[in-house]
Amino acid sequence: MNKGMIKVSVLYPNGKDNTFDMDYYCNTHVPMVAGLLGDAVKGATVEKGLGGGSPDSPATYAAMGNLYFDSMDTFEKSFGPNIDAIMADIPNFANSEPIIQISEVMI
Amino acid sequence: MNKGMIKVSVLYPNGKDNTFDMDYYCNTHVPMVAGLLGDAVKGATVEKGLGGGSPDSPATYAAMGNLYFDSMDTFEKSFGPNIDAIMADIPNFANSEPIIQISEVMI
Repeated sequence: MNKGMIKVSVLYPNGKDNTFDMDYYCNTHVPMVAGLLGDAVKGATVEKGLGGGSPDSPATYAAMGNLYFDSMDTFEKSFGPNIDAIMADIPNFANSEPIIQISEVMI
Repeated sequence: MNKGMIKVSVLYPNGKDNTFDMDYYCNTHVPMVAGLLGDAVKGATVEKGLGGGSPDSPATYAAMGNLYFDSMDTFEKSFGPNIDAIMADIPNFANSEPIIQISEVMI
């Protein structure tokens, strides 16, 4: 991805009472989101949390999903009309509310 | 980056008392880390937090830095001998302790 692009990160908290279905997320949710948002999405990545900074410490996030857009405008115009459908799918793979962060790609 | 790679994320919390020098981070810290870790690093990205999921909400993280490695083994062997030098540079650009997350690239 290139400097100046918009990265939208969805961070699913880890925890003993938190569940996350990585197979559903990768094979159903992310393709659904990509289909809804169409050409506005310039890239999508998913990571599974393995651990924290010190040995044997848990990962803060069970999963991180990231979408890249050319601008805030293309993100908002594609995401806005689809946000209800996207949010409604979250209980199908996670029981915790994700943290959403909008960032600008610097490097 | 490719499926199965290791992504090490360093997440710097946002907050009214938190400072973060993005110029120093991008132009001094990240090149220093890349130089210390050498060929083990397969990619590096940096993002600046712009906002959260709801309008006008703040970003959870002021900055996110990510390094990619081929395996946990190459990460640990390159990072271990350099961790003290890397950590000692953090006060030069941030006054808060970052969250570190080790992840596996799924998509």
